[in-house]
Amino acid sequence: MQGPEAQAALDGTRDVAEHLFAARLISACTGHDQPMRGSASLVGAGPGDPELLTLRAVRALKHADAVMYDALIDPAILDLARRDARRIDVGKRCGRHAMSQTVINRLILRLTQSGAQVVRLKGGDPMVFGRGGEELDCLRVAGVPVEVIPGVTAACAAAARLAIPLTHRNVARSLHFITGHGANGSVPAHDWAGLARAGGTIAAYMAGRTLSIVAARLIAAGLPAATPSVAIQNASRSNERRLFAPLADLPKLLSEQGFDGPTLAIIGTVVELAVNQTTEIACAA
Amino acid sequence: MQGPEAQAALDGTRDVAEHLFAARLISACTGHDQPMRGSASLVGAGPGDPELLTLRAVRALKHADAVMYDALIDPAILDLARRDARRIDVGKRCGRHAMSQTVINRLILRLTQSGAQVVRLKGGDPMVFGRGGEELDCLRVAGVPVEVIPGVTAACAAAARLAIPLTHRNVARSLHFITGHGANGSVPAHDWAGLARAGGTIAAYMAGRTLSIVAARLIAAGLPAATPSVAIQNASRSNERRLFAPLADLPKLLSEQGFDGPTLAIIGTVVELAVNQTTEIACAA
Repeated sequence: MQGPEAQAALDGTRDVAEHLFAARLISACTGHDQPMRGSASLVGAGPGDPELLTLRAVRALKHADAVMYDALIDPAILDLARRDARRIDVGKRCGRHAMSQTVINRLILRLTQSGAQVVRLKGGDPMVFGRGGEELDCLRVAGVPVEVIPGVTAACAAAARLAIPLTHRNVARSLHFITGHGANGSVPAHDWAGLARAGGTIAAYMAGRTLSIVAARLIAAGLPAATPSVAIQNASRSNERRLFAPLADLPKLLSEQGFDGPTLAIIGTVVELAVNQTTEIACAA
Repeated sequence: MQGPEAQAALDGTRDVAEHLFAARLISACTGHDQPMRGSASLVGAGPGDPELLTLRAVRALKHADAVMYDALIDPAILDLARRDARRIDVGKRCGRHAMSQTVINRLILRLTQSGAQVVRLKGGDPMVFGRGGEELDCLRVAGVPVEVIPGVTAACAAAARLAIPLTHRNVARSLHFITGHGANGSVPAHDWAGLARAGGTIAAYMAGRTLSIVAARLIAAGLPAATPSVAIQNASRSNERRLFAPLADLPKLLSEQGFDGPTLAIIGTVVELAVNQTTEIACAA
């Protein structure tokens, strides 16, 4: 096995991969495709506000026979699908998987192979964290037509809400997305020294529970403890929460103020510009 | 001067900053606001395809009295604005500025202060490269109400078109955005060693002309010359072009094939997954 097959097997979907590999061989030998009229769209749902869907995402939703969605998708977004479309919650919450990735992969395949137009709706952008690549691998191996519809990723949504430029002349010339939540639930072994030294903005995805470790690693690697930082939850939604603090203090404050659930942290000098905005407003009042 | 004033001055807009600082002082002293009913929206236009605008961006365009837009904005996007809206091309092309940032800043201020609802339409996401932060600073200092509407950033648009996951389990756990085009037109002094060592995906924005330098720096810092890479122009548009090559070969090939104009490069192992896709198609044929 090579390429996607190997990847799928690595990811614990060996049975699916092998089945599909065999099916593809049969198809190549007989010159017949599988009985397959369906297709899949991996669709970025953006940060939550339905207004931040793209026109193309809305169109895909309106055409879908089935919508497979994550836990954090707003019901108002699902309302955009046809009334008779199947709505399937495959929601995964941090540490509590409603459906394993293997089962999700199988379900997409089964639906598309039965002829359905399937929208796999993922928070943010489907190609930034969130395992969209694994679903893509699986669909490719099976020869299912698949398109990817990009979305507004969480860091951009947060930056817009906070009015923080993620890059800024003379302040931050690079932008680094890391995840606080690796495959086994622990913090991945990022190059902390490189991140600390880069002088760019760091956007830490899924960093709620692990932010204390992320912050400690960055500070140990040389990032100043006073680096301006902000944590934001549910950016663009009615239940949005945000908390500004120096990096060293942010994890404790988050815990004290009961932030749980998916959290994005933005770490870097640019965050100060948002604080200044508050100062401006206070000054003008 | 502090905060945004200082920033504006640093950025060569000292006259505007001082004027506004004075105006704000007068306003604070008299208790009167400036005669100002307008507002500004910094709007992400996404990668080019009008279908990749968000619903909210479309709404902002439909309400705008004036639309200030960059060179690469598709005419079909401008057609979404009201027929009587002013359309102002403030387009900057690499190395050839149609309008300086200072003049753009002044124009937004003058329009909003005359009562206009101004949409400042920027390619991609307004807070990722592209100097949206400078316009934000300027508007804040002047006390102009401003909102930011996020968009699909170029890296996500390219990843969707190429069906490349930007992060992928066991392959790339981080994602690094750099620009090939600094304030003075040269390649910024990124932490090349850190980028080479991070093991993540690198998205190099505005890297057309400078990709040879970016590639040389990364390779000198230890990134393998054979690292799978792709350059893409006009992702999502009818004139989209893409070129896959090992990192060391990409700049020369781009030049040979006449790629000029804004180019995004994606550098990292994940790019191989797009190549595999091509292999899959060839295999099935």
